[in-house]
Amino acid sequence: MEKTCADALPLTMNSSEKQETVCIFGTGDFGRSLGFKILQCGYSVVFGSRNPEMSSLLPSSAEVLSYSEAAQKSDIIILTVHREHYDFLTELIEVLNGKILVDVSNNLKINQYPESNAEYLAQLVPGAHVVKAFNTISAWALQSGIMDANRQVFVCGNNSRAKQRVVDIARTLGLTPLDQGSLTAANEIENYPLQLFPMWRVPFYLSAALCVFFFFYCVIREVIYPYVYEKEDSTFRLAISIPNRVFPITALTLLALVYLPGVIAAILQVYRGTKYRRFPGWLDHWMLCRKQLGLVALGFAFLHVIYTLVIPIRYYVRWRIRNITITQVMAKKDNPFSTSSAWLSDSYVSLGILGFFLFVLLGITSLPSVSNTVNWREFRFVQSKLGFLTLILCTAHTLVYGGKRFLNPSSLRWYLPSAYILALVIPCTVLVMKFILIVPCIDKTLTRIRQGWERNSKYSKSALKGKSDI
Amino acid sequence: MEKTCADALPLTMNSSEKQETVCIFGTGDFGRSLGFKILQCGYSVVFGSRNPEMSSLLPSSAEVLSYSEAAQKSDIIILTVHREHYDFLTELIEVLNGKILVDVSNNLKINQYPESNAEYLAQLVPGAHVVKAFNTISAWALQSGIMDANRQVFVCGNNSRAKQRVVDIARTLGLTPLDQGSLTAANEIENYPLQLFPMWRVPFYLSAALCVFFFFYCVIREVIYPYVYEKEDSTFRLAISIPNRVFPITALTLLALVYLPGVIAAILQVYRGTKYRRFPGWLDHWMLCRKQLGLVALGFAFLHVIYTLVIPIRYYVRWRIRNITITQVMAKKDNPFSTSSAWLSDSYVSLGILGFFLFVLLGITSLPSVSNTVNWREFRFVQSKLGFLTLILCTAHTLVYGGKRFLNPSSLRWYLPSAYILALVIPCTVLVMKFILIVPCIDKTLTRIRQGWERNSKYSKSALKGKSDI
Amino acid sequence: MEKTCADALPLTMNSSEKQETVCIFGTGDFGRSLGFKILQCGYSVVFGSRNPEMSSLLPSSAEVLSYSEAAQKSDIIILTVHREHYDFLTELIEVLNGKILVDVSNNLKINQYPESNAEYLAQLVPGAHVVKAFNTISAWALQSGIMDANRQVFVCGNNSRAKQRVVDIARTLGLTPLDQGSLTAANEIENYPLQLFPMWRVPFYLSAALCVFFFFYCVIREVIYPYVYEKEDSTFRLAISIPNRVFPITALTLLALVYLPGVIAAILQVYRGTKYRRFPGWLDHWMLCRKQLGLVALGFAFLHVIYTLVIPIRYYVRWRIRNITITQVMAKKDNPFSTSSAWLSDSYVSLGILGFFLFVLLGITSLPSVSNTVNWREFRFVQSKLGFLTLILCTAHTLVYGGKRFLNPSSLRWYLPSAYILALVIPCTVLVMKFILIVPCIDKTLTRIRQGWERNSKYSKSALKGKSDI
Repeated sequence: MEKTCADALPLTMNSSEKQETVCIFGTGDFGRSLGFKILQCGYSVVFGSRNPEMSSLLPSSAEVLSYSEAAQKSDIIILTVHREHYDFLTELIEVLNGKILVDVSNNLKINQYPESNAEYLAQLVPGAHVVKAFNTISAWALQSGIMDANRQVFVCGNNSRAKQRVVDIARTLGLTPLDQGSLTAANEIENYPLQLFPMWRVPFYLSAALCVFFFFYCVIREVIYPYVYEKEDSTFRLAISIPNRVFPITALTLLALVYLPGVIAAILQVYRGTKYRRFPGWLDHWMLCRKQLGLVALGFAFLHVIYTLVIPIRYYVRWRIRNITITQVMAKKDNPFSTSSAWLSDSYVSLGILGFFLFVLLGITSLPSVSNTVNWREFRFVQSKLGFLTLILCTAHTLVYGGKRFLNPSSLRWYLPSAYILALVIPCTVLVMKFILIVPCIDKTLTRIRQGWERNSKYSKSALKGKSDI
Repeated sequence: MEKTCADALPLTMNSSEKQETVCIFGTGDFGRSLGFKILQCGYSVVFGSRNPEMSSLLPSSAEVLSYSEAAQKSDIIILTVHREHYDFLTELIEVLNGKILVDVSNNLKINQYPESNAEYLAQLVPGAHVVKAFNTISAWALQSGIMDANRQVFVCGNNSRAKQRVVDIARTLGLTPLDQGSLTAANEIENYPLQLFPMWRVPFYLSAALCVFFFFYCVIREVIYPYVYEKEDSTFRLAISIPNRVFPITALTLLALVYLPGVIAAILQVYRGTKYRRFPGWLDHWMLCRKQLGLVALGFAFLHVIYTLVIPIRYYVRWRIRNITITQVMAKKDNPFSTSSAWLSDSYVSLGILGFFLFVLLGITSLPSVSNTVNWREFRFVQSKLGFLTLILCTAHTLVYGGKRFLNPSSLRWYLPSAYILALVIPCTVLVMKFILIVPCIDKTLTRIRQGWERNSKYSKSALKGKSDI
Repeated sequence: MEKTCADALPLTMNSSEKQETVCIFGTGDFGRSLGFKILQCGYSVVFGSRNPEMSSLLPSSAEVLSYSEAAQKSDIIILTVHREHYDFLTELIEVLNGKILVDVSNNLKINQYPESNAEYLAQLVPGAHVVKAFNTISAWALQSGIMDANRQVFVCGNNSRAKQRVVDIARTLGLTPLDQGSLTAANEIENYPLQLFPMWRVPFYLSAALCVFFFFYCVIREVIYPYVYEKEDSTFRLAISIPNRVFPITALTLLALVYLPGVIAAILQVYRGTKYRRFPGWLDHWMLCRKQLGLVALGFAFLHVIYTLVIPIRYYVRWRIRNITITQVMAKKDNPFSTSSAWLSDSYVSLGILGFFLFVLLGITSLPSVSNTVNWREFRFVQSKLGFLTLILCTAHTLVYGGKRFLNPSSLRWYLPSAYILALVIPCTVLVMKFILIVPCIDKTLTRIRQGWERNSKYSKSALKGKSDI
């Protein structure tokens, strides 16, 4: 059911009962595309234009009239004109009285004007029922019938009958109308198509900054240091070895940053003894972009996994292994098997795999279609319990990876410790704070606070009352 | 369009036409959160409380009155009180007559009471139009505006006008109302938020049991046996080697268990000669959790793939390969290339990869948003045809893996065969039964039975009639 | 909320207000299943049958009457009879006048009849309000309550009140009704369940053809050639080595074919100087299946990644590495480290990983539930910007893989170049054309054309007008 009436030619309607007329003001590209599409779906279309005789490229079966003539032919007028040119409507106030006026306009910038275009239109033509709609649909999508992207049409307006008419037209066009309530929602609807991943910006810049920092940190330790002291050319490490240090560090840090704000919020609540004081703004914003932080972290973890799995294919690794074997043969040295090395190597790999597995699970449950099938309790279980388990496994993976070398002074180069040690700071902090918070006495206090209890409440009975009201 | 009116302060409404009043009974945490949210979205809010003068923490712009005063101010009353305290409503029966009464309550256990809270409420206040809604939304989600989890509000009620009012409010709050029909659906709606993955329980416990069994089986064969006979310490195998035997076995067994009930059902139908007798309860339940069984199997297959891919990175494997090379050099023994070994090794790997690829494809098509875009014929094609192909490939992968060692008595340890041989029992049984069922004469009978034909029907013409009716 | 009233027995309704009666014509399998389900959900059901006394297997609580008697009992009649037997309705025209007649029928082939079954029915019984619905639901799904597949019920009809009644029933049955507009949509609704991945056919056959061609190409070069000249048995290469050449080549070619039509369309627009002439049909079709082409390409890329990662596990590879080491030890030859080889090997692997990562990202954003949460600007950013970056990375991966051997005459066998060189032809063409198109002067022209400007327009002001109209 992908394309309702997408390829159909304008229908020669035989069901005489339906032939409704839709009026479109403006003959620009979007107006034409929308008009053509509406025609295809069995409506009559009348265009309103400043210069009706000059209008080209319009569907031949559509009439082109002056604005006021066109408006009289239909009770619904779609306005495909830029906001700056709305003035001409003031002359048509009488004709437009009681009609449905659909505002499809978008702005060039977010919050360009003090009020939304639709609300401005409603002030300009107070007698008309203004409905905001269709601004999220592109002319190209209408023309081509390709609507892989969003088919959602956000509709808002103060008159529910008018809104219903627009919803019906949108549905006939094969789109998915979504009622957004009264005309005050127009502002948000107009800002929507101008956004470019607003929630992803902070996680993206943060991870970029982390990547750049750790990249140069590793370059200093692993490329410049050996070059200075041993005249060794390790530049080839830039391609795989160093990214494969930077990516897991970034992933682990971002994953810890997903759980840090929750821990901070809990500490704040315990400290304040109430949950009824707003968190600072930065904490609120941080909590709102946790999902995006987690998904970026998953991306880096995925890269780390593949970069690790290709290790044995690399020329350098094959060369080194061959060299070790040859040296050993030449030296006729014995090569005893170390069970502890096998344990260390196998367990850090195993911890990493299990951590990644849970991480992928978290990522899948954050898909909109999956998270819509779970209830609140299940969602909290997955995102909180499984999330912390993931953090524990990934931190343990890094700790065991360090193994015997961990905090060994000989691994310092120019007083810089190995990069993975820096990666452990935030995760370990988060885990320690979390373990403190789940100590029974603190956990109990926190639970009571979250159920509405207040330490310093003057209404001492509020906790009691919480037992009868939800 | 994530958060309609999430951060907005209570609006100073200028569109005088809309200012509807919503009454909330109860000033608990959920009541306050909901009231605050409703206020933000442009409604007036009146709280009804036992002790109006004692109620703290309520939004300052909301009135707090006694129950009966508050109820008179609005035609819609949201009841945020626990079911145990509904009695007080009996005194308000007259005031509530003809009003919309929204039940938001949840219970502590599934099916705690003989009838749902909403139905109980409807009996208590027969004159009111009871609507069940909002019970799936958490107070915290309302407060924070973070609604990554379910935004779905299940609504049910016997009066469609009342239902529509609640649906409108839910939509204005940025939620997704879903009409669930009459008030008899309330029971299910109330049980919904108490569930914790009910369909996943059997697959989860089953796979855990399989894992534990095969884990100890492998520990006996690969850790205890060599320790007893050769004093060899192979405990490091617990980290990767043994999980990498347990996971594929569990995955293959679970995958076979996905297709076993369908085969059993077909055999039952052929044996009974009719499809109009109910299957036994256990078979019905088994068929209902096939999707979950398959996804758990996919999880284990995914783990098996990663555990296999890290093999060459492991210390033990590198050590062993080095040792083999050195031994060979020392012995100056020739190392002839065996084409049959290359064939065996390459084909079991290749079969495994293709099986895993199809398995991932099956997993992706079971995502709700994907399965909603395919029709019944396509869904059956993917889940049945591709599913059996996956089972065939994975079984063949295991068979070829066994290769020459398969059923070799020397691989018995303490009379225990290799674990992968046990893994083959169910898949091979399923495949053999399936191949018998698609033998033309049986397949034809089965198809006729599924089209409604009955072997021993007294109405011999029923098959004939099936040709004119769908 | 998976199964509304799925397991419930026919309810003993106590809410006397609702007990509506639904009439079902036809007692075939679908009719019975639907009737049983409707009964369970609290409606009364009356069956209409040719031989009421002969009808078996019907729910005992349902009445079975003759057609005209049954029709009089209800204002809604669900017709579960094949189109070929609709004639009997002509005798019932008077009884059916003003009633809602629901057509649930499907055909055996797409576009089997000149008009849809529902439209044919509307002509046959002009006095009834014909609604098309329920044709996408299978009898088995209704019986078992298992509705993992599509729960969508497409509803269309010319009378909106009649449609609303059917929508209500569908919702009570736990299905998802989708209003598709007027009865002209019935044709599409009837074709929907007969489709088997129509959009996937071209990508599937194309990729199969590419696979077969490159498979035999590689067999000639890598199996037959060495056999002819060196009597070497390399047949084992058929299992992994050759697929691992064929899959990446197919993936890269298909990925390039995703972006080729866009480039061709842009060239056509620049050449024609207008965007208002239709593209040739083949180009339109090609553009419509780009998403499917890309997903098939992603499947091959995924296979390539796993086939590459298993390389070090293969018997052949282990044997060869061991042999190289042994030969080197025997010859006591030095094995100098080549930085340039390390650079080449590491960078082609790294490029491939990054390309695959972006490719997976593209795949995830094409999931329906994800693409519904992004706006048009974000969708274009991901699919166009990130898509071309993916193509650049994958092409570079192949180019660097060739490295020094690239276009080396010694790699020709029977004048056939290495297969990966053929794989580069289309991607490089697409990239060169794209780079030409983003040269500022051409890009500016193209942008103006896409905004509605025309080079040879007789209305020279149309560009100007485009500034006031959207």
